[in-house]
Amino acid sequence: MKRINIGLLGLGNIGTGTYRTLEMNAAHIRRAAGLDFAVTRILERDVDRERGITVSKAIFTQNPDDIWNDPATDIVIELLGGVEPATSFMVGAMNRGKHVVTANKAALAANYEILTDAAARNNVMFRFEASVGGGIPILNALTTALLANEYEEIMGILNGTTNYILTKMAGENLTYETALKEAQAKGFAEADPTADVEGEDVANKLSILMSLVFGKRVLPGDIPTSGITKITKDDIEAAKADGCVIKLLASAFKRGDGIDCFIQPTLLNKDHPLASVDNEFNAIFVKGNAVHDLMFYGKGAGPLPTGSAVVGDAIEIGRAIAKGAAFDLRG
Amino acid sequence: MKRINIGLLGLGNIGTGTYRTLEMNAAHIRRAAGLDFAVTRILERDVDRERGITVSKAIFTQNPDDIWNDPATDIVIELLGGVEPATSFMVGAMNRGKHVVTANKAALAANYEILTDAAARNNVMFRFEASVGGGIPILNALTTALLANEYEEIMGILNGTTNYILTKMAGENLTYETALKEAQAKGFAEADPTADVEGEDVANKLSILMSLVFGKRVLPGDIPTSGITKITKDDIEAAKADGCVIKLLASAFKRGDGIDCFIQPTLLNKDHPLASVDNEFNAIFVKGNAVHDLMFYGKGAGPLPTGSAVVGDAIEIGRAIAKGAAFDLRG
Repeated sequence: MKRINIGLLGLGNIGTGTYRTLEMNAAHIRRAAGLDFAVTRILERDVDRERGITVSKAIFTQNPDDIWNDPATDIVIELLGGVEPATSFMVGAMNRGKHVVTANKAALAANYEILTDAAARNNVMFRFEASVGGGIPILNALTTALLANEYEEIMGILNGTTNYILTKMAGENLTYETALKEAQAKGFAEADPTADVEGEDVANKLSILMSLVFGKRVLPGDIPTSGITKITKDDIEAAKADGCVIKLLASAFKRGDGIDCFIQPTLLNKDHPLASVDNEFNAIFVKGNAVHDLMFYGKGAGPLPTGSAVVGDAIEIGRAIAKGAAFDLRG
Repeated sequence: MKRINIGLLGLGNIGTGTYRTLEMNAAHIRRAAGLDFAVTRILERDVDRERGITVSKAIFTQNPDDIWNDPATDIVIELLGGVEPATSFMVGAMNRGKHVVTANKAALAANYEILTDAAARNNVMFRFEASVGGGIPILNALTTALLANEYEEIMGILNGTTNYILTKMAGENLTYETALKEAQAKGFAEADPTADVEGEDVANKLSILMSLVFGKRVLPGDIPTSGITKITKDDIEAAKADGCVIKLLASAFKRGDGIDCFIQPTLLNKDHPLASVDNEFNAIFVKGNAVHDLMFYGKGAGPLPTGSAVVGDAIEIGRAIAKGAAFDLRG
């Protein structure tokens, strides 16, 4: 049994989901992976919030130095969100030899090279499965099991909020505004829904996917993006009359020597595998030159599905540490 | 760049698909994984068959000793099919320190402990992604990225032949016999279709999944299994009238302290994600206690999709060899 000490940056919804996943499945993880995870430090201001987890107040700190300067810390898990200070904190941790796991799509999309270069320079492992598709293990598949393929296309429904709104509009004949309010009431949309409904969240995810799949860096702001705010009941009705549904699709594919990409509401025939991806679910469609069409489907958000991906990354790193091979076998 | 020498057992359809994947994507694999694969030995009687690949006759042998006694062989890829001599050959290779990759579901279902014990005893890597779901990277996901979860259920459409027949019966109002003949004419069913249509092929795959997911060994012959030979046009019509489709489902799930399992034709509501999995496609549905519902969809058979999975396994092993960490990080 190998003990692995985790320093956690952020104990909001995703941090709490990660903590709960570690707590709930501790016995399973010991049995299945031979690892005994302990969260030994948490960077978080809000010590007193009721989160439904058992966590000692003594491990909270407001100084990231306490986490990355502690020689006992094996893995830093960054769940603060946002580009800064998250990027600086991750680079700081890697510069001190810590392996890093993150769910932070904004930081990755903005600073992909800075982060992957820092990991390579310091010979540490850097994993970010939860940054795209929540609990769906798509990045792991693309960078390991599917690596025999040249990728031709990647396409997906990458945002649960907009998919929930479009599903409600179609299923219950609602206007965009009414469906958005319902999504907000159910916790599927934020009070300011801009980043979701205008496609910015999806652009971050597509940018990360393009870096991994095509080795091509495109900043999120450079991806042609249309959100769903202009979709009307008439659009939905017209799609239905044609045997179609409207989904907000992110797509990147080879064309000639280059890569094309876009994010836009798209008509899909009802027989298409992505057409039955409803509510808050996500799905990612990949085409490789040997495997042909593949699709991955699951919960693209939520504390526990995201916690599943974060802890999965930590298990990969923990196993490598336990075997004395704590360097990047994927690199 | 690390050179990795492969000894191939069998150059039938899957062996040829694996060879083609390695040949077609050699430059990509060098770039993406830093590996230069060479097939240095092939165990195969039929030297002269036209396979559409460039392979020197000098590397063919009919003696497996030539492969596993060659110190230059890094990985043995077993694609003979059938329980024996495949099992003995794989154990023989592992006993001589060779890493092994296989697509052989019959050998795994019959001899799971013998094979995994031989790998552990010899400290070699043993991978079999292609044995379940063809090109779908489900075993990799279940044993790495999803390991933070306690699994509650696994369910799937695991046989392309029967799914093709059921799709044709429903879509074109055919009898079972006519649809079977069409599947045979298109190469989706064998001249003797028994193993597919009676569910034996699916039972092998479900047995492997249960070993991995629940750590529970159930021999294929002990799984309650009904095939599709008794499905009539009337059954299909009745399902349609209820808004359902009939799929041959394999299922294993926790009940109380035990695991239940079965393989049988099952009514699925048309809205279920598995209902739109048509023709020769496979899909696997997993429920974990953190990630909730996940589905993986893709081509469950065929030379190149299967080659994608086999070469993906070889890449994982090759990377570990290249980094000097050629032992099982998943164990």
